[in-house]
Amino acid sequence: MKVFTDLQAPRELIDWLRASIAPHELLLPTQGATSVLADLPTDPLMQEADIVLGQPRVDAVLSSRNLKWLQISTAGYTRYDSAEFRAEMRTRGIVVSNSSHVYDAPCAEHVLAFMLANARQLPRGLATRCANGTPEWLALRRDSRLLQGQSLLIAGYGTIAERLIELLEPFRMSITAIRRQARGNEKVPIIPPDQANAALATADHVVNILPDNPASLRWFDAGRLGHMKPGAIFYNIGRGSTVDQDALAEALKSGHLAAAWLDVTDPEPLADDHVLWTCDNCHITPHTAGGQFDETRILIGRFLDNLQRHLSGQPIVDRIM
Amino acid sequence: MKVFTDLQAPRELIDWLRASIAPHELLLPTQGATSVLADLPTDPLMQEADIVLGQPRVDAVLSSRNLKWLQISTAGYTRYDSAEFRAEMRTRGIVVSNSSHVYDAPCAEHVLAFMLANARQLPRGLATRCANGTPEWLALRRDSRLLQGQSLLIAGYGTIAERLIELLEPFRMSITAIRRQARGNEKVPIIPPDQANAALATADHVVNILPDNPASLRWFDAGRLGHMKPGAIFYNIGRGSTVDQDALAEALKSGHLAAAWLDVTDPEPLADDHVLWTCDNCHITPHTAGGQFDETRILIGRFLDNLQRHLSGQPIVDRIM
Repeated sequence: MKVFTDLQAPRELIDWLRASIAPHELLLPTQGATSVLADLPTDPLMQEADIVLGQPRVDAVLSSRNLKWLQISTAGYTRYDSAEFRAEMRTRGIVVSNSSHVYDAPCAEHVLAFMLANARQLPRGLATRCANGTPEWLALRRDSRLLQGQSLLIAGYGTIAERLIELLEPFRMSITAIRRQARGNEKVPIIPPDQANAALATADHVVNILPDNPASLRWFDAGRLGHMKPGAIFYNIGRGSTVDQDALAEALKSGHLAAAWLDVTDPEPLADDHVLWTCDNCHITPHTAGGQFDETRILIGRFLDNLQRHLSGQPIVDRIM
Repeated sequence: MKVFTDLQAPRELIDWLRASIAPHELLLPTQGATSVLADLPTDPLMQEADIVLGQPRVDAVLSSRNLKWLQISTAGYTRYDSAEFRAEMRTRGIVVSNSSHVYDAPCAEHVLAFMLANARQLPRGLATRCANGTPEWLALRRDSRLLQGQSLLIAGYGTIAERLIELLEPFRMSITAIRRQARGNEKVPIIPPDQANAALATADHVVNILPDNPASLRWFDAGRLGHMKPGAIFYNIGRGSTVDQDALAEALKSGHLAAAWLDVTDPEPLADDHVLWTCDNCHITPHTAGGQFDETRILIGRFLDNLQRHLSGQPIVDRIM
């Protein structure tokens, strides 16, 4: 069999992948990849592959001749998430999986880092040199909070939400989640999207992990942000397109929301003159929530685990189509 | 009975305390308090009190005539922690308690905020505006870590350590602690101080919660810091006096330690020309780890709970002498 990958990886990891899949053949792009999130040109070699690991263009997948299994190298899969693509994969018997289990732990730790950094007022505390007992010191201590016992609403229930819920167990928070189709095996009470406003009104923290699709576009608009509890904190580690950023800036400037912590924006990065940069209470990391040391080795390891399953006829983990 | 407090608290909390202890009498300092950590003058009214809540001077405690129970308003109690003071309290039958249960949750959340902010590279990420796929972005993602599966050594095992261990349970870290006298009921393996060097050599994270006493003075000196694992991270939410800060700055500048996160220093704040301010990998908050919204209300609430125990002859919680 032929395995094609457009992964951007150091030579030694590519060599490891090649050795690990032998005697099957590894095909690499004619021109090297530049980013896991960039659009890559269709590569003629991909057309011959039985298995693809990476971020191929949709037209390249559709025009492939031998493809049996595609493992997407990210957790998000917007470009593939259409009825037409799903139907074509079903018709041709092509299995599609993503890499959500590579990213759930770092994303969950990243958003918990946001939540605790806000609760403990780290940006302000790290910038303050004051003596014990001064008014500045008393105010900083008074504005510091515990997560313990507070309430959290998660928008978008998947593997990241599940890991976040695990991490938060010792904090004894009151947690609910919004999911389009409850499956009954969720770890917290599920609210359908049409009942979101009431849930938004009572949550101290709202974590947005919505994927990017037509239904989620600007889902957090002025209306939904307006329903949030005064003084609440908004976090986004999903996709920037799911938020009306001008409305968010309004809510932050008016003080309706106490703070926002964003790992994703639309576009990335925001233009230098974007209003969110002028909000002192808006904290932005540049889409690094999924990052971790040895990320590519872990991603390849997950692929190799799945390859064993594929070769032995077991179900593929993280299958999405 | 007469209850004296030198707590710095808003009028309504003092009124609440007064109402809550009635028919017992509340005595307040002749001159108002300025800080829970400042040295206060001996107040003549304190000499009459049966019960004291706050931070009285040692000589004021020793010269008190009616004192039966002292509840210290902090977790640390350095000034009272001498053999002479303990002996005098024992002889006179005075019970001494501290407020460690007020501060364990915020301190544990604060140090976890430090640990996650470091793992997720928040100070750097929040200061970076880069596009996906750029070398800067790849480096930031590569330097981001998971706490999950890493190793932690805690120096100083008490209620803060216990809460931190609870919070870290979902991270499946390998945790050990240094304690002078193991009691056998600790939640993690305990190492005596004389075996610290071997433990320091293998820990990815070292959290210092040592109290301030003669045995802990500069306990983290050049030798012990030198035994730490290269690339490890040092956290201090105990007392600044337990660290040789010049040696710490050396270890940070040489790159032997990847970073330090300090909530306490010696003195507080450090002088503006202190070398630690010049270390990019040293992150300092101004002794706010114990702070929380409504801290004084919680502290008074804990005192009132203990007062009920005192009046009904039950054991005092957080008793230290």
